[in-house]
Amino acid sequence: MPLSPDQQAEIDALRASPRPTLRAVSEGMERHLYLAHPVLDHGFVRVIDYMGDDAAIVQAARVSYGAGTRHVQNDEGLIRYLMRHWHSTPFEMCEVKLHVKLPVFVARQWIRHRTANVNEYSARYSILDREFYIPAPGDLAAQSSVNNQGRGAVLGAEEAARVLGWLREDAARAYDHYEAMLSTEGQQGLARELARMNLPMNVYTQWYWKTDLHNLFHFLRLRADPHAQMEIRVYAEAIARIVADWVPIAAAAFADYRMGGTTLSAQAIAVLRRRLAGEAVTQETSGMSKGEWREFTDLWG
Amino acid sequence: MPLSPDQQAEIDALRASPRPTLRAVSEGMERHLYLAHPVLDHGFVRVIDYMGDDAAIVQAARVSYGAGTRHVQNDEGLIRYLMRHWHSTPFEMCEVKLHVKLPVFVARQWIRHRTANVNEYSARYSILDREFYIPAPGDLAAQSSVNNQGRGAVLGAEEAARVLGWLREDAARAYDHYEAMLSTEGQQGLARELARMNLPMNVYTQWYWKTDLHNLFHFLRLRADPHAQMEIRVYAEAIARIVADWVPIAAAAFADYRMGGTTLSAQAIAVLRRRLAGEAVTQETSGMSKGEWREFTDLWG
Amino acid sequence: MPLSPDQQAEIDALRASPRPTLRAVSEGMERHLYLAHPVLDHGFVRVIDYMGDDAAIVQAARVSYGAGTRHVQNDEGLIRYLMRHWHSTPFEMCEVKLHVKLPVFVARQWIRHRTANVNEYSARYSILDREFYIPAPGDLAAQSSVNNQGRGAVLGAEEAARVLGWLREDAARAYDHYEAMLSTEGQQGLARELARMNLPMNVYTQWYWKTDLHNLFHFLRLRADPHAQMEIRVYAEAIARIVADWVPIAAAAFADYRMGGTTLSAQAIAVLRRRLAGEAVTQETSGMSKGEWREFTDLWG
Amino acid sequence: MPLSPDQQAEIDALRASPRPTLRAVSEGMERHLYLAHPVLDHGFVRVIDYMGDDAAIVQAARVSYGAGTRHVQNDEGLIRYLMRHWHSTPFEMCEVKLHVKLPVFVARQWIRHRTANVNEYSARYSILDREFYIPAPGDLAAQSSVNNQGRGAVLGAEEAARVLGWLREDAARAYDHYEAMLSTEGQQGLARELARMNLPMNVYTQWYWKTDLHNLFHFLRLRADPHAQMEIRVYAEAIARIVADWVPIAAAAFADYRMGGTTLSAQAIAVLRRRLAGEAVTQETSGMSKGEWREFTDLWG
Repeated sequence: MPLSPDQQAEIDALRASPRPTLRAVSEGMERHLYLAHPVLDHGFVRVIDYMGDDAAIVQAARVSYGAGTRHVQNDEGLIRYLMRHWHSTPFEMCEVKLHVKLPVFVARQWIRHRTANVNEYSARYSILDREFYIPAPGDLAAQSSVNNQGRGAVLGAEEAARVLGWLREDAARAYDHYEAMLSTEGQQGLARELARMNLPMNVYTQWYWKTDLHNLFHFLRLRADPHAQMEIRVYAEAIARIVADWVPIAAAAFADYRMGGTTLSAQAIAVLRRRLAGEAVTQETSGMSKGEWREFTDLWG
Repeated sequence: MPLSPDQQAEIDALRASPRPTLRAVSEGMERHLYLAHPVLDHGFVRVIDYMGDDAAIVQAARVSYGAGTRHVQNDEGLIRYLMRHWHSTPFEMCEVKLHVKLPVFVARQWIRHRTANVNEYSARYSILDREFYIPAPGDLAAQSSVNNQGRGAVLGAEEAARVLGWLREDAARAYDHYEAMLSTEGQQGLARELARMNLPMNVYTQWYWKTDLHNLFHFLRLRADPHAQMEIRVYAEAIARIVADWVPIAAAAFADYRMGGTTLSAQAIAVLRRRLAGEAVTQETSGMSKGEWREFTDLWG
Repeated sequence: MPLSPDQQAEIDALRASPRPTLRAVSEGMERHLYLAHPVLDHGFVRVIDYMGDDAAIVQAARVSYGAGTRHVQNDEGLIRYLMRHWHSTPFEMCEVKLHVKLPVFVARQWIRHRTANVNEYSARYSILDREFYIPAPGDLAAQSSVNNQGRGAVLGAEEAARVLGWLREDAARAYDHYEAMLSTEGQQGLARELARMNLPMNVYTQWYWKTDLHNLFHFLRLRADPHAQMEIRVYAEAIARIVADWVPIAAAAFADYRMGGTTLSAQAIAVLRRRLAGEAVTQETSGMSKGEWREFTDLWG
Repeated sequence: MPLSPDQQAEIDALRASPRPTLRAVSEGMERHLYLAHPVLDHGFVRVIDYMGDDAAIVQAARVSYGAGTRHVQNDEGLIRYLMRHWHSTPFEMCEVKLHVKLPVFVARQWIRHRTANVNEYSARYSILDREFYIPAPGDLAAQSSVNNQGRGAVLGAEEAARVLGWLREDAARAYDHYEAMLSTEGQQGLARELARMNLPMNVYTQWYWKTDLHNLFHFLRLRADPHAQMEIRVYAEAIARIVADWVPIAAAAFADYRMGGTTLSAQAIAVLRRRLAGEAVTQETSGMSKGEWREFTDLWG
C-alpha cells in the first residue's frame, strides 16, 4: 500500500477545494491531480501540477507560424503535422510535475534523462523507509540468451523461491543494520549520509520530477519501449495513460508517429522499394549486416 | 500601441471566464494573466501561463529534506535558507510562460539564456509588421569612455536629431523595399526567407518564452543589472515586478541575496577584515589589481 | 575574401608547429585545423579544436557495456549498432569547436540549437565590419506556392536585378549611417550598443561554436535537410564534409541511418505491408491525411 | 588497488606513444593523461582527454570582445576579469573527459549535475565487480547535531568496529547472493538487470564523465566545499588538483573568486558598512535571521 492514511487525507483535502483560475485547464488532467497511481509493489506516480493542454501546443505553433496557420488546418491536423515533422518547440510549451515513488535502481536509469527538474528525498537529511521492491514471482526471469541487456524465460518455481528468499532476507538484514547504525541508544549513532550506503538498490526513494511534454515524449519513447527494463516500463506506461487524458490529440499523434512508427535506414528503404517492385531480396543482397537484417525482417517479414 | 483591437478583445475574453482547477493558484499572478505590460515603444511582456507559487517551492524542498523540515522553519525562513545556500532545484519547480514582443537586437541577447523553451514568430513563414524600436531622445547616449560595452552621457539635441532621423529613415526605406520585394503584383515576389534579410535589427519580433523560476532569477540577475543594456533591462524589470506578485517570498529573498547582494573574492575578504581591525589598506597592499580595487572601492568606499 | 592577410598569416603559423600529445588524434581532422572553408560570399567555417575520434566512441561504449563487447563486434559494427538503436551518449564523447562567420539571420536560426557553447563577436564592445550577404542571382527565388516557409522558382533577371540593387543600397546606406553615428569627429558619437540596431540582418557576425558529436549530428539532420533554408544548409554541408574526415565510420552510419533514412508512422507501416501483400492502397483507405499521403507517395510512389 | 595489471599495461602503452597535433596542448595536463589518481579505497579519477588551455579561454573571449581587448590586458588579467564578472562562455570553450570509479551513493549525488555527458558501466549488460567502499575507521562519524545533513564527532572504537563489521558482512553476503542468483550452474540464472538490485549502494561503479570547464568549476564549488559529503569531496579535490595543472591561471582565479570568496546579502553589506563606520551591530539590529547571523559571524567574527 503506497500511501499512508495521512497522505490519503492530504490528497482528499487537496482534491476537495477547486479554485478559479484564468489559465488553460485540461479537464482530463484535473481528474488525475494528486491521485496516486500504484506501480510495482510500493511505488506510485501522481500528478502534482501541469501547465497547458492541446490548445496550448497549437497556440504556441501559431505564434511561430503566424496568422496564416489559423485558417489552413484545424487543431488536430496542426498537432499531427508538428509531430510528423519533428517540430519540438510547441510541445515544450506544456509542462508536468509528477511525484514518483520508485526503487533506487529504477531511479538511476530515470535520472539519465537530463532535461528535467528533480527534487529527490535526501537520505543525508532523512531516514529512508523500510520498503523494498520484491518482484512478483512471474517477473523473475532468466538472463536473455539473445539480448545482452534483457531477460528471457520466467524462472522455475524452485529457483524463483530461492531468489525471493535472498532478496527479502538481504534487504531485511541490511535495513535492520541501517537502523542499528543510526540508533543513538547507548551509542553515538552513525551519520545518515554514511548509514545509507548499506541499503540495497531495491530500496524505494521518491522525487518530484518536472519536465516538458517534448522531453516527456522522448522519455516515453525510450522507457515505454518493449526493450526497456520492465521495472521502469511500468512507470512509463502509467505516465502514458495520464498523458492520454491530459493532451489527447498530441498523445494520439505520438502513438501513431513515434511509439507505433519506425525508422528506416537508406538500405532498408532500398530493400522495401525492391520488394515493392516484386524482387526477392536476401540479407546477402540487402546491403545490411546480419543484425540489421534480423531486425528488419522481424518487422517486415 | 502594442496591441491591436482584436488582440485586446481576445485578452478580455480570456480574462472573463475563470475555470475551476485543483492546482496551486497564485492570486497575485492571476491578476497579470494575459495583460500586456508595455515595454519600449512597441514591445510588451505578458503572462500566458504559470505553474506553482511560494508554497510549491516549500513543498518540493520538503520532499527532499523530509518530514523533519516541517516543524523547524516556517515557509519564509525555508525559502530564504534555500536562496542563501544556492539550493536551486526547489525554485525549478515553478514555471512561467511569457509572450514577449521585442526588437531583434534585444532578442539576440535574450536567447543566449539557453535553459528555456522558445517559439518565435517565423519570418520565413509570415510577414513581419512595420514596427521598429526608435529610442526616446533621452535614451540616445554616447559611447562610454570607461566601459567598452556601455553608454555614457546623453547626446546633445542636434546629434540626437540626426541619429533619430537616420534610424527612422533607414527603417522606413528598408521596410518599403521589404514590401516591394515580397509583392507579387507584376512580378514573381521574393521568398519571405530572403526578403527579411533587408530589415534592420531594431525591427520587432515576438515569441513565447517559457522557463523555470531558478533560471528566470538567473536571467534577472544578469539582465536587470545596471550594467545590462537599457533596452533589455526594461524587459527584465517588467518581469521582476510580475515575479514579485507571483512568488512574493521568493522574490524578496532574491532581492536580498542576489540583486542587492554582492560577491567578495578572497582578497576582498582579507581587505575588509583588515579594515574592520582598523588598518588602512591601499590598492598596493590589497593584493587586488587596479580594476578590481576600483570596483571594490565603488562599493565599500 | 573571408580572411585578411593577418588572419591567413596566423593560420599559417598555427599550422606550422605541431606539438606532441598523448590524446586521441584524428589524422583526417588535423588536416582541417584552422583552415577556413569558404561559405556564401563572405562567410567561413573552420575547425579550432576537437576531442576524440571513431575509436573514442567505441571506447566510451565499451565502458558502458563492459568487456563483453570487446570480442563480439568490430568497431564499425558497434558504431552502426549504436546509431541504429539511438544510443546517443557514446557520440557525446566527441567534441568539436568551430569558428564560423555567418550572416545574422542565419545566426538567429543556428542559435536555436541550445546544447552548444557559443562566444559571439559583441557589437556592444566592437564595431562590425562592412560585410553583408548579397545572394548570387541564381539564389534569388520566389516564395514557394506549396511550402509556406520555402522558396520556388528563380527570379527573372529584371526582378533579380531590382532586388539586388535594394539589398546592396540599403546595406551600404545603413552602414554609412552606422559609421556616421559612431564617429566622434565633431560630435559625441553614439554608443556602439545603440548604433548597431541600424544594421540589416544580412550583416556578417562570427562566433566560436562548440558542441558534441551527437548534438552536431542533430544539427546536421535538421540543417543539411533539403527543407532547410539554403543559406544555413551550405554551412551544414561544409560541416558534414569535415565530420566525414574526422569520424568517418560514425559519419557513414549517420548518412545511412539518419540523412538517408526516413521515419514511418503506424499508418505508413500498415500501408507498406498491404502493398507488399499486393494490395493497391489509396489515400482514402490509407488512414492518412492528404498531407501525410502526399509526403508518403513522394517517397514511395 | 584500483587498477588491474592489464589496465596498467594499457595505460603504459597509451602514455608511451605521443603523436603530433596542431591543437592547443596543455603540458600540465599531458602529464596527467590516463594516469589513475586513487580516491577512497577502490576508486580513482583519470583524465582520458581534454580540449583547450588557458590560452583557449582568452582566445574565445577575444572573439567576443574583438581586437580592442588585444592590447588592454594580458591573458591573466583578462581571465581574472572574466571570472570576477561571471562571464561563463569563454570557460565553456575548454572541455575535459574523465574516467571515474566511484561508489553508487556518490554517483547518485554526482549525476545531479546535468550539464555533462556520461557513459556509465551498465549492470544490465555486465557483471559488477566485488568491490565496496568501506570507510576508514577515522571517517566513521556520528550524525551532526547542528547540521541535519552532515556528520559530527568520529565514532568510538567499539561502535566503529560494529559498523564496519555490518558494512563488510552485508556487502559480502549481498555479493555472494548476487553471484549465486546469476549462476547458470544447475539453474536458469537470474537476469543481470534483476540480480543487481540486491547490491548495496557502496558497491563501485564507473563512468566516463565529460563536461566543460565552466560547469566543472560549478561542480567543484559545490562538491569541494566543506559542507559536501566527504566521500564526494575527495573526488572534487582530486579533480581540482588536476585542473590546477591544466589551466593554472583560470584555476587560480577560481580559487580567489569562488572557492576562497563569499557572497553577501543586502543585509550583510549594510552590517559590514555600519561596522566599518565603527558601529557595534547585534543580530537584533542586523536585519538578519538567527541562522543567517550565525553564518555571518562565523566568517566575520
